[in-house]
Amino acid sequence: MKLAELKTAEFVDLLASDAPAPGGGSAAALEGALGAALTAMVCSLTIGKKKYAEFEEIAKSAQAKANDLKARFVDVMDRDTEAFNVVSAAFGMPKATDEEKAARSAAIQKGLEGCTKTPFEMMELAVETLELTASILGKSNDSAASDLGVSALSLRAAIQGAWLNVLINIGSLKNKELAEDYRQKGEALLAKALPLADEIYDTVVKSM
Amino acid sequence: MKLAELKTAEFVDLLASDAPAPGGGSAAALEGALGAALTAMVCSLTIGKKKYAEFEEIAKSAQAKANDLKARFVDVMDRDTEAFNVVSAAFGMPKATDEEKAARSAAIQKGLEGCTKTPFEMMELAVETLELTASILGKSNDSAASDLGVSALSLRAAIQGAWLNVLINIGSLKNKELAEDYRQKGEALLAKALPLADEIYDTVVKSM
Repeated sequence: MKLAELKTAEFVDLLASDAPAPGGGSAAALEGALGAALTAMVCSLTIGKKKYAEFEEIAKSAQAKANDLKARFVDVMDRDTEAFNVVSAAFGMPKATDEEKAARSAAIQKGLEGCTKTPFEMMELAVETLELTASILGKSNDSAASDLGVSALSLRAAIQGAWLNVLINIGSLKNKELAEDYRQKGEALLAKALPLADEIYDTVVKSM
Repeated sequence: MKLAELKTAEFVDLLASDAPAPGGGSAAALEGALGAALTAMVCSLTIGKKKYAEFEEIAKSAQAKANDLKARFVDVMDRDTEAFNVVSAAFGMPKATDEEKAARSAAIQKGLEGCTKTPFEMMELAVETLELTASILGKSNDSAASDLGVSALSLRAAIQGAWLNVLINIGSLKNKELAEDYRQKGEALLAKALPLADEIYDTVVKSM
C-alpha cells in the first residue's frame, strides 16, 4: 500500500501510531509536496488572467516544473518509508555466526546508505522548488501571495526535516568518507535554502 | 467531500490546481496535524518500553493530548476551506441596489471574520502542540528524537502559514479594532512559538 494512496486522515493516523513507518522522513516529503503544489497553484491562478498576461509564459513554465517537483516529492515520500523498511529488515537478520554477523552488518550499512540517499534527495528537491517559488514571486497573481509564503515555509520544514534524517543515518554509517561527504553537501544545501525561504516569507509579509 | 477523506496524492493534486480551495490555510493545518501526529508517534514508541518505564505516565498523557490536537488540526483543515468558500460566495452576491451592496458588504465582512478566526485557531493549536512536544523532549524514546525535530519544524511552518492567512484577512476587515486585536494576539503567539520550535530543533541536532 502506497502512502500516497492513503486518505489524508489515515496517513496522519498511521503516522501517529507505533508503526515503525512512516515517520518524520515521509512527513517531511509530504511537506515538500505541499510546498511544490502551492507554487503550482499560484501559477494555475496566474495563467489565463488578463491582468497577469505579461507573466503567462513564466507561469506556464513554472507550473510544469512545480507539478513535476510535486510528483517527485510524492514518490520520495514512499521511497523514504521503503528505505526504512529495508534497514529494519536488515536489523532482523540472524547473527549467530561470524558469517551471519558480517552479512547482517553489510546489509545494515547498505540499508543506511539508502536511508541517507532518500532524505538527501528531498533536500535537493526542496532547494530546486524554493528557487522556482522565488522566481515567480512578484510575477504571479498577487491575491495568492500568501500561498507562495506557505510554500516557502513548507519547503523550509521539508529541507530541515530531511536534514535531520540525513544526520541520524550518517551517524551510523561506517563509511566515514561518505558520511562526511553527505554532511558537507547537506550543509551547503541548507545554507542556500534557509535564507531563500526566509526571504520569500519576509517579502510576502511585507506585501500585506 | 471532506479534505481529510481525499487520498494524500489527491489532496496534493487538488492543492496544485486552479480550484480556489484548498489553499495555503488548509496546507498549514495539515502540517500542524503532521506535527501533532509525530509527537503522538514518539509517545507511542515510548509507551511499554522497559528502557523508558520512568516516562510511561508522561508519554501516555502526552499521547492522548497529541492525538486530540492532531484531530483538531484535521478538523480545522476542512473548516479553513469552508470559511474560504463562505467569503467567496459573499463576493458573488448581487450588488445592483444600495440594499444589495450593503448586504453583500456585510456578508463579506462576516465571511472575512470567519477566515481570520480559523487560522488564528490553528496558531493557538500550534503553540499548544509545540509546548507538548517540548515537554517530552529528553523524556521519550531517544531513537525517535529526529521525529520530535520534524514535529517542531512542521508546527513552525503551520503557525507561520496560519499567520499569513490571518494577515491577509485582517487587511480587509473594516472592524479595525478586531483586526488590531488579532494582530497583537497573533504576534504574541509567534513570539512564543518560534523560539520554542527552534530550541527543539537545535536540541535534536545537537543530540545527533
